[in-house]
Amino acid sequence: MNAYQSLSPIQRKEELNKLKAEFDALCARKLSLNMARGKPGKAQLDMVSDILTVLNDPAQCVIDGIDARNYGELAGLPAARRFFAEVLGCKPEQCFIGGSASLQLMYDVVAKAYTHGLRHSPLPWSKEQKVKWLCPAPGYDRHFGISNSFGMEMITIPMTPTGPDMDLVEALVKDPEVKGIWCVPKYSNPDGIIYSDETVDRIAALRPAAPDFTVLWDNAYCVHEFEGEFQPFRDIISLCAAAGNPDMVFEFASTSKITMPGAGISALASSEENIKYYCSLATYQIISYDKVNQLRHVLYLKDKEHLLALMKRHAKILGPKFRCVLDTLEREIEPLGIASWQKPKGGYFVSVNTLPGLARRTLELCKQAGVTMTGAGATYPYGKDPNDSNIRIAPSLPAVEELQAAMDVFVLCLKIAALEQLG
Amino acid sequence: MNAYQSLSPIQRKEELNKLKAEFDALCARKLSLNMARGKPGKAQLDMVSDILTVLNDPAQCVIDGIDARNYGELAGLPAARRFFAEVLGCKPEQCFIGGSASLQLMYDVVAKAYTHGLRHSPLPWSKEQKVKWLCPAPGYDRHFGISNSFGMEMITIPMTPTGPDMDLVEALVKDPEVKGIWCVPKYSNPDGIIYSDETVDRIAALRPAAPDFTVLWDNAYCVHEFEGEFQPFRDIISLCAAAGNPDMVFEFASTSKITMPGAGISALASSEENIKYYCSLATYQIISYDKVNQLRHVLYLKDKEHLLALMKRHAKILGPKFRCVLDTLEREIEPLGIASWQKPKGGYFVSVNTLPGLARRTLELCKQAGVTMTGAGATYPYGKDPNDSNIRIAPSLPAVEELQAAMDVFVLCLKIAALEQLG
Repeated sequence: MNAYQSLSPIQRKEELNKLKAEFDALCARKLSLNMARGKPGKAQLDMVSDILTVLNDPAQCVIDGIDARNYGELAGLPAARRFFAEVLGCKPEQCFIGGSASLQLMYDVVAKAYTHGLRHSPLPWSKEQKVKWLCPAPGYDRHFGISNSFGMEMITIPMTPTGPDMDLVEALVKDPEVKGIWCVPKYSNPDGIIYSDETVDRIAALRPAAPDFTVLWDNAYCVHEFEGEFQPFRDIISLCAAAGNPDMVFEFASTSKITMPGAGISALASSEENIKYYCSLATYQIISYDKVNQLRHVLYLKDKEHLLALMKRHAKILGPKFRCVLDTLEREIEPLGIASWQKPKGGYFVSVNTLPGLARRTLELCKQAGVTMTGAGATYPYGKDPNDSNIRIAPSLPAVEELQAAMDVFVLCLKIAALEQLG
Repeated sequence: MNAYQSLSPIQRKEELNKLKAEFDALCARKLSLNMARGKPGKAQLDMVSDILTVLNDPAQCVIDGIDARNYGELAGLPAARRFFAEVLGCKPEQCFIGGSASLQLMYDVVAKAYTHGLRHSPLPWSKEQKVKWLCPAPGYDRHFGISNSFGMEMITIPMTPTGPDMDLVEALVKDPEVKGIWCVPKYSNPDGIIYSDETVDRIAALRPAAPDFTVLWDNAYCVHEFEGEFQPFRDIISLCAAAGNPDMVFEFASTSKITMPGAGISALASSEENIKYYCSLATYQIISYDKVNQLRHVLYLKDKEHLLALMKRHAKILGPKFRCVLDTLEREIEPLGIASWQKPKGGYFVSVNTLPGLARRTLELCKQAGVTMTGAGATYPYGKDPNDSNIRIAPSLPAVEELQAAMDVFVLCLKIAALEQLG
């Protein structure tokens, strides 16, 4: 029983009236605050803007005998491939360097599966009767957007505190129409969960019926601690190889939340054979992604150690924002028992699970009060949260003062929604 | 009758022996020269390398109220859209800004036609029994590479001095399986031909049977004169609209040969409705291409007038290289009558048509003497030149002295091939 349930109907009505008065006062302030997307804030962008000038002379443009300014090197500058290999714990030959968005590389792997097929595909997926895809949820709306855009049948896999429900995953991959799964192994979007070693081992050792079953391993937050020390992670590529699935995984990473979201570099990592196959298709698509920006990043980020030091500086900006969110929830919501949440130490989100049926109404009220959040349901396939419960909070963009104002609105709206539901 | 045919067999043998001695002497020099690809040379790259520092301060990063460093603006920075619109003579709303390669945008339009269909497609092309594509040839090998990669049936359209053979094109588009055509309207790759106004009008006014027939209008050399004044060109998008085909054309351009091939920006231009439709698919693929590089280009190139002034500086570097090629051909080959060629004033190639049956052998000899050229047949669909005649010379990369050495090799090899053929 939550705190509101233990009130009498009259007490509830009084409480609701009081909260609504507060709400009206907030609406009158005509706020315009945004916690919708995992966008870095201005302070983070300013902090890394010296990347703009790190490459400033023609003489710097030649590296490993390659002029980064000219055509060539489909898979990216060797120096950029070495950098990502060190960060991800794989080999440079297993890395393909992309443009400003790892999303584009994910989309492209799926697109090529549809138009050409992957290495072990009996048919291009556009020729398959049906393609089913496993979608751990709550999850990343843009992953589900790709699956939906290609007409996949999305199957929701519940998330547990150790990652996707692996019993269910292992059962479902026996269906040859199930062609893959989305994974965000570290600080999962939005829950902030780190997959346990057991979960990762079970994923690497899957025995799917489909010979071209594919794990899309979006390591978006691989070095993105905002609190505490860097948490090492294991190399999924060698784990899959050791488990007899050398070509099953495509891993993705980017510098979008390390340098600049609008101007980073990205990487696709997989078995050498998969990278060769991918290049054999991509050679008709592009001569190379932007190598000057790859060089700029190599000069700026240097190596993993230097990168982790930069992430500590990001953490100094992000940490207080997450603490603001978590403190406000703890203070205002925890005593009421109307929602629960993970307490992540990295990533870009706090994922709040309200009592069933409150998410949509809470966000509707937030919108009325000038606070934009990720739409209700966005963290589920087809935008449909079966419990109308999950709300993704993205605290990175606003300054702490604005964020506090937005969180004050949010907790107020959640309380109102909970009271309204009790009637 | 060419000059060699008018020689007696003994004279021919003497001439061949003399040339072969020269050839052996050249081989002994162990040259390593490359005229294979349209790569800008180092002097051009150095000339534009001040683009590296034009954007150097966080305060510059906000333009039109948008922080180029952060997420957002799928279709590109408004300033970059305005820039390309001015250059191409269309509207900013008709421009989508891509990454470092217009090739990637071309590939993507084709890929989306296969996976999702274009606006007027009855079916995604992956569901069509057959897709046929018109390929004016000699043409760009990377265009044919895209068509081939998607399994299109490529139909060769002969090039004339005014563009593709339009009688043939008009006849073939009556076949509903013919879904499109590749066009390089200005300084066509490789002939350097500018399509005549009549050709352009006839393309815009095509009456194809396929409702989703698509003109892929690769305006790669739209401002790329290396000799003489800028040649204005007409806006294909409004011409198609005026002819009742508003959604028939996708135009492409890039700064690859304006700033840096490895780090430029690109544009896709089409009807507003097509751009909206494209964005409705691309929104699942990418948040935006690199906007910081878009901003860098806007700051560096400024506007069309400033761009054309820069192209004059490129012409000062490229002009002598093309004159070296053309002068050598005129001096050494023209009197013999064993090949003919266009004399372009822009673009990146000289296209040599030998007497039938000489191209492959000429390039084989060049390779033996250390000169790499675009492979024989590359300018035709499936890599098959029916006459074994077309050779593409790309003079932009080597310095003039190297280029002269390479051209000396080339004309010698061509002469030897011609004499060998006469027996």
